[in-house]
Amino acid sequence: MSNFNLRIVNTEGTRRDEIINTATKLFKEKGYSAVTMRDLATAMGMKAASLYNHINSKQEILKAIIISLAEAFTQGMETIKNSDETVIRKLNLIVALHVDITTKNPYGMASLNNDWMHLEEQLEYYLQLREGYEQDFVAIIKNGIASNEIVDTNPEVIMFSILSTLRSLYLWIPNKDDLDPKILAQNLSDVLINGINK
Amino acid sequence: MSNFNLRIVNTEGTRRDEIINTATKLFKEKGYSAVTMRDLATAMGMKAASLYNHINSKQEILKAIIISLAEAFTQGMETIKNSDETVIRKLNLIVALHVDITTKNPYGMASLNNDWMHLEEQLEYYLQLREGYEQDFVAIIKNGIASNEIVDTNPEVIMFSILSTLRSLYLWIPNKDDLDPKILAQNLSDVLINGINK
Repeated sequence: MSNFNLRIVNTEGTRRDEIINTATKLFKEKGYSAVTMRDLATAMGMKAASLYNHINSKQEILKAIIISLAEAFTQGMETIKNSDETVIRKLNLIVALHVDITTKNPYGMASLNNDWMHLEEQLEYYLQLREGYEQDFVAIIKNGIASNEIVDTNPEVIMFSILSTLRSLYLWIPNKDDLDPKILAQNLSDVLINGINK
Repeated sequence: MSNFNLRIVNTEGTRRDEIINTATKLFKEKGYSAVTMRDLATAMGMKAASLYNHINSKQEILKAIIISLAEAFTQGMETIKNSDETVIRKLNLIVALHVDITTKNPYGMASLNNDWMHLEEQLEYYLQLREGYEQDFVAIIKNGIASNEIVDTNPEVIMFSILSTLRSLYLWIPNKDDLDPKILAQNLSDVLINGINK
């Protein structure tokens, strides 16, 4: 059963999720620092006091948005890293992982990209997840260079190049309702891995 | 004679430039909205009243940072667009343009990327420059597809992929003092244009 189904049957969960979803949009529009709990209550059509029945602080919301996304990336990377696929196929799967997570939650990805530095006690943990993700990514690239599957260029330049594109997807996906995520992942994989030179 | 040399002989120019450079770093560290003219005066070791002898507002600084960078990109693109080079060579030159501008002013590029939406009367003009830049870029890609120089994939996916990487350079270049800009431009061109598949 998916996480989503689990949440549907939990009324408190869905109300909290609605608050988090509304906050995510507000953070995207105004920036985390500029949004107040009062703004959030207004956007939810609730009294501030009722809002606090569901959520304690803006920080709790930010943590819920960012940490769950960062953990989804880490979990996806673990699966890909430990699979028996070729390096090229692993890179295809990493592209698909980013397209999938970003398509499902582009506003959350905006928050991850723009607001992570506002995390307080979870900042260290977030940075560990990100660092671990990048280490796994660069290790896959180095394996591909060693096994002669990918070109012998600076592995950090390769990772930076792919990851910058994937991390910018949230800027682009919301405007591309007509683009099927599977086709986008395939096109992006082609461009990022095979290049564009004919 | 370069712009830089012109400014050296103009004392008022250099003082104003120092203020702009200091503000650029503060914007990067704290975000445009959080920086006050008082913070800037403190960082410059000046009294606020003296600061206002050189500059009228934060907005004037933001405009100076962002518009000059955006115009540099537009000017570079004009030259590349109107050259007689092949499409692949034009793309190499676009990569080199971004590496060059970002290497010279990574903090300014952070401001361009993060603070453009805080522009007031210049916002429309900035958006025109950006839109024009992207139109020229995608036209070059379409020419390359038409002339069979580059692969026939969605030209917007190709532009998005290259441009996201180039627009993220400011996040990466300040940590890479050991990377020669020319070598970086060459490596990035290779990865972006030829891909990494061996």
